[in-house]
Amino acid sequence: MKLYFSPASPFARKVRVSALELGLAERIELLQISLSPVSPHTDLRQHNPLGKIPALITDEGAALYDSPVICEYLDALAGGARLWPAAGPARWRALTRQALADGITDAAVLVRYEQAVRPEPLRWAQWIEGQWLKIRTALEALERDSLEGVFDIGTISVACALGYLDFRFAEEGWRARLPRLAAWYALISERASLAATRPS
Amino acid sequence: MKLYFSPASPFARKVRVSALELGLAERIELLQISLSPVSPHTDLRQHNPLGKIPALITDEGAALYDSPVICEYLDALAGGARLWPAAGPARWRALTRQALADGITDAAVLVRYEQAVRPEPLRWAQWIEGQWLKIRTALEALERDSLEGVFDIGTISVACALGYLDFRFAEEGWRARLPRLAAWYALISERASLAATRPS
Repeated sequence: MKLYFSPASPFARKVRVSALELGLAERIELLQISLSPVSPHTDLRQHNPLGKIPALITDEGAALYDSPVICEYLDALAGGARLWPAAGPARWRALTRQALADGITDAAVLVRYEQAVRPEPLRWAQWIEGQWLKIRTALEALERDSLEGVFDIGTISVACALGYLDFRFAEEGWRARLPRLAAWYALISERASLAATRPS
Repeated sequence: MKLYFSPASPFARKVRVSALELGLAERIELLQISLSPVSPHTDLRQHNPLGKIPALITDEGAALYDSPVICEYLDALAGGARLWPAAGPARWRALTRQALADGITDAAVLVRYEQAVRPEPLRWAQWIEGQWLKIRTALEALERDSLEGVFDIGTISVACALGYLDFRFAEEGWRARLPRLAAWYALISERASLAATRPS
């Protein structure tokens, strides 16, 4: 298999963490690329018309995306029901957590585009505030959630979202307000799969 | 169950179409709300901290989101493997199509925000062009795809993405360039579930 990725991408990190946890990392060739929201990558777009990473090319030559699809595919390849609980309350909880975490990351990426890519005179403070409100409300919900002892696609996604916030917005300082989430994140970050894929 | 939705939301439409196809629509109370990317909805946010629709409240009181999670939950509730193929090539194809279609809709929503919500002096033509490039490349990939005879979460998502483009960007006129996709869409749009949920 081949994976289009960048070391900074929080969505590609979910795939790399899953592959490491499932013992599949050695079967995946990593193709590192750089992307910008306003300049497309020709080779990637032949596989994923949206021009987004991660995109996986299977051994059969099929292109799979986005990160939830690739992660579920890898889980099935490793026997199934390992990082993706079977249908039932645990699955809906894990997948809703994944949606919450990916939503945090989506909002953070939009803030990043607004602040680092869009020309300065065209930036809109209210848009940035709206995205931060999503992020902060979602983090507060995670502070009240029971993440301890759970390791699945939901908590992997939460860890990757928090890693991205630390990587791009270290000044946000969410740990002071959310001590339980901070303690959970400190512990899970020690896992080899997360330690090996820290964004850079 | 209760579903937060708006009649214009292409992602909520996926859920409403799925519910109709699965015979579950009568078990879902529809809670219609209006959203803006810069003004949050307090009641919705108590259930979905991201403040996005669709969000489903199950009969057990759990909040589920986003649209793929709710659609898969409804499919399981109706017995499973009806609109979501079981693990295997058909599933990965359906879920990648869903990601492609949802990616078209995401890009179209970003264009809509840029053109209808962001103050005019802050709009960035290059950003809009970048989103349209994603949309058009994805539509061209769908023109080459074999959608005929397939009805699952992948093709439902494609139909809802095209419906949103027609609703917000009728002037785009994609049908002239993509006759095979146009013929497929004309046929699938006649289904009762899609006809009953046309955006307004």
